Amino acid sequence: MKRASLAAIAGSALCASGAAFAQASQVQGPVTGSSVTLFGVADAAVAYGSGSIATKTQLISSGNSASRIGFRGIEDLGGGLGAGFWLESGVSLDTGTGVAGNTNNQASGATSADALSFNRRSTVSLIDLWGELRLGRDFTAHYRNRTDVDPFDNNGVGTIQPQAGSIAGPTSTRASNMLGYFLPPGLGGLFGEVQYFMGENQKHTPAADDGTGLSGRVGWRSGPFGIAVATARTDYQQTATNGDIRSTNVGASYDFQIVEVSAGYYRDKVESFQPVTATGYAVGFIVPVGIDQIKFAWSRYGTDAIGDPAARKLSLGYVYSFSKRSVAYATYSHLSNSGGSAVGLNGSITAPDRSSNGYDLGLRHSF
Amino acid sequence: MKRASLAAIAGSALCASGAAFAQASQVQGPVTGSSVTLFGVADAAVAYGSGSIATKTQLISSGNSASRIGFRGIEDLGGGLGAGFWLESGVSLDTGTGVAGNTNNQASGATSADALSFNRRSTVSLIDLWGELRLGRDFTAHYRNRTDVDPFDNNGVGTIQPQAGSIAGPTSTRASNMLGYFLPPGLGGLFGEVQYFMGENQKHTPAADDGTGLSGRVGWRSGPFGIAVATARTDYQQTATNGDIRSTNVGASYDFQIVEVSAGYYRDKVESFQPVTATGYAVGFIVPVGIDQIKFAWSRYGTDAIGDPAARKLSLGYVYSFSKRSVAYATYSHLSNSGGSAVGLNGSITAPDRSSNGYDLGLRHSF
Amino acid sequence: MKRASLAAIAGSALCASGAAFAQASQVQGPVTGSSVTLFGVADAAVAYGSGSIATKTQLISSGNSASRIGFRGIEDLGGGLGAGFWLESGVSLDTGTGVAGNTNNQASGATSADALSFNRRSTVSLIDLWGELRLGRDFTAHYRNRTDVDPFDNNGVGTIQPQAGSIAGPTSTRASNMLGYFLPPGLGGLFGEVQYFMGENQKHTPAADDGTGLSGRVGWRSGPFGIAVATARTDYQQTATNGDIRSTNVGASYDFQIVEVSAGYYRDKVESFQPVTATGYAVGFIVPVGIDQIKFAWSRYGTDAIGDPAARKLSLGYVYSFSKRSVAYATYSHLSNSGGSAVGLNGSITAPDRSSNGYDLGLRHSF
Repeated sequence: MKRASLAAIAGSALCASGAAFAQASQVQGPVTGSSVTLFGVADAAVAYGSGSIATKTQLISSGNSASRIGFRGIEDLGGGLGAGFWLESGVSLDTGTGVAGNTNNQASGATSADALSFNRRSTVSLIDLWGELRLGRDFTAHYRNRTDVDPFDNNGVGTIQPQAGSIAGPTSTRASNMLGYFLPPGLGGLFGEVQYFMGENQKHTPAADDGTGLSGRVGWRSGPFGIAVATARTDYQQTATNGDIRSTNVGASYDFQIVEVSAGYYRDKVESFQPVTATGYAVGFIVPVGIDQIKFAWSRYGTDAIGDPAARKLSLGYVYSFSKRSVAYATYSHLSNSGGSAVGLNGSITAPDRSSNGYDLGLRHSF
Repeated sequence: MKRASLAAIAGSALCASGAAFAQASQVQGPVTGSSVTLFGVADAAVAYGSGSIATKTQLISSGNSASRIGFRGIEDLGGGLGAGFWLESGVSLDTGTGVAGNTNNQASGATSADALSFNRRSTVSLIDLWGELRLGRDFTAHYRNRTDVDPFDNNGVGTIQPQAGSIAGPTSTRASNMLGYFLPPGLGGLFGEVQYFMGENQKHTPAADDGTGLSGRVGWRSGPFGIAVATARTDYQQTATNGDIRSTNVGASYDFQIVEVSAGYYRDKVESFQPVTATGYAVGFIVPVGIDQIKFAWSRYGTDAIGDPAARKLSLGYVYSFSKRSVAYATYSHLSNSGGSAVGLNGSITAPDRSSNGYDLGLRHSF
Repeated sequence: MKRASLAAIAGSALCASGAAFAQASQVQGPVTGSSVTLFGVADAAVAYGSGSIATKTQLISSGNSASRIGFRGIEDLGGGLGAGFWLESGVSLDTGTGVAGNTNNQASGATSADALSFNRRSTVSLIDLWGELRLGRDFTAHYRNRTDVDPFDNNGVGTIQPQAGSIAGPTSTRASNMLGYFLPPGLGGLFGEVQYFMGENQKHTPAADDGTGLSGRVGWRSGPFGIAVATARTDYQQTATNGDIRSTNVGASYDFQIVEVSAGYYRDKVESFQPVTATGYAVGFIVPVGIDQIKFAWSRYGTDAIGDPAARKLSLGYVYSFSKRSVAYATYSHLSNSGGSAVGLNGSITAPDRSSNGYDLGLRHSF
């Protein structure tokens, strides 16, 4: 029985930490065989933060790449058709606990961080010529677009402020109860995905649609250049502080060989009675030094709330590679608050409009 | 040192989803080598339910087979003797969380569904000529007998109502703190198991024996025909709503090649001050269509509470197989309530004595 | 690029259960290749305890060795340099749940036992000629020294009373947020480690240093003889019942071939307003009988609280080995209380100054 034809397998959402800016879909090549893979990251760092009020020293997890353990596999169904699964649990390496997830894309669905769950990704996929159908819990498309141009991959003190300070709510990074579709590769550099996710609330109530939304992303990559735009909306009942959340961002990168440059623009809006809009931008540089990397990022994220609070962050990092799998790293960040903002780095406390400094000094091993 | 002779290894409690009716013990063949296996199922479906009051659409987990991840192994101890372990965690694939378990076979022992635990099975075994000794948490014998004749394997909207609506309490499906014994294979088709499980309460109190009980099953299989009976009792302090729970069921199946037919009869009794007895039956058909399957089940489950509330369910399913490991499936069920029953399918809400409809449309990948 | 020279890999903290007394560091041999390993223990026992007030029968987990599942790996970085990870979750085999951990080395950081977490160990390591740097959650050094001379490895009813009754608080066994350093092997029998762990509390408060501490161990092993001493301090705010906890212990062992003998001395002090000091000792014997073992331990642990409450324990065990990986075991213990102590074995309840008896009858399989 021939039920399939040429197809491709998606699956590389496991970002290689510190890699070049992705700027492309996770769709990668044709199905060439069946496999089940155990994978993960163990990353811990001494983290120090100072603010005008209080400093803090900790051992943190995930300063360079998110500590995790996962299981993924793909079955070659012949003729290129494939089916696969991906189960990935966050780990707090400093304590051995898990990382909190969310079951319904709403505040009420937050889960305990005490133990392991496949909070990072939990999906089953069917892949063919037409692309990939993916069901379960996964990154949202607008998150992928946001993180792909962050030299620090949303990890550690260095991550760009449009990620660290995002007001985009429970679906800012991931969503549960998702139906996703990815374009196949081989479209001349075009890539994209669209997702529908459900809050699964009781119907016929004011909060019936809370946690339900859409996210989409489309981009184009050609040689050293990539650009992509994403937009999303998640519904929430309108109150003084909550309401539908809309996020739009665009990111681009260019690899000049001696330096990879990236830039992003971000806009998040919470449609509460008095809507709040946040805007941000980021510029990043990754300079390869042999197998090591120098990372630099400059970013800003602020809202139009009273005073126009905003935070500007400057981050500098060095990744020393023992191998592709094992690195030591050092990151330094300086954050400036304005308009009443009081963001402190690495657990420090700082007064409004005062600055904060932080660094991470860590060890990361991927497996 | 020769410490063992001819023996056999148990272990196939990982039901192949959508397989023929099991109607046999989990005891399978002699120990032929040592191994450790990672296994699991990733299953998600769009599920819709409609009732007279409210409808619901969700992404659910486990519409065709229970989403899970597990680790099991067997050590060949020579001469046929074997030792093994089995650790299996339920997964809610739609959210990445776990599935609730129970530590003491009582309401007080319910555990959080937020995270992963070996709620499905957690055992250590010793296997020899005389059978298998199995210690830990496992399915109860009377559950195995109940589910073995369900064409839908207790998964999704289609599962027979004596499973979906069971009043048999915390040990209806599994029990913790269990000592189990399985008959060896090679007894001319005879198979069986007996289990003793403990609630582990403080002695000398009215609830001392809560959660403690026995479950046993005996059956016979010959060629296309199999039949088995199971009975169980779990102790609970007698109150207006609780009391000892007794369950008995019998199931039989016959494989006519063009169709496999199964039937079951079920009786559960809660010995509260005013005892409640539930009775049910189910008839199932699985029609192989090449490597696909058509499934059909008709079932009823009702109690002798005031009004004699009962639910009748008709289920029809199609399983489209990409391979043995990967399938797409569609299931439709219609449920009729009577006597004040108000069961709604797939999260829908229906008024007493009104009907409910539901369907699942999903993807399952085993690994 | 040559970035490394001769080095050694640490990692054998997975104690072989029932093995000879360790009395040496976990540092073992040079890095000889990369690997990722799945490992674990499944151990369950029928446990009975009797006291003057109430008896108890249970199925317990971990009567001979702690039930667990783990993942560990090492990367050979060339020239002997290595990097590795170790993630190990406790399992309650009787119920399938996890084992409680602690995120901040304080009572407030206790985590749920409902589900799996890498409560036993969660570390990333860098290893070279100079030793091992290990970050994350791990055993404390003073625990390793305490358990290395216990014939029962801190498992089951037989474990020595300075372990079972320890007043040494949250870091008595493990600590989170730890920076650890191990001496390399090849120092003529000398071994040692030092650890700094953090409570990570807000600064400038009375409890700022709670959960922060140091633990260190140094020892020497030569042929059949080994000796080691460990000391630790964890800070806690002083109250009527709490305060800094100081622990010191020394252990030694000698392998006479026909019997291995061990002895330990223990001192734990809680510096509350009215300080409490506990002292204990233990003597152990392991007699090999072919591949089986007879174990014997005699221990005492008591405090200088009013009445000088103390417990003395006598334990006798037999481990029947089907293989190195699979054993059956029986352990019997008798505990005598004095000075108002009321310790009951295996969940039994006994009146002050009365005795208690307990036994475990179990099955353990390692993988």
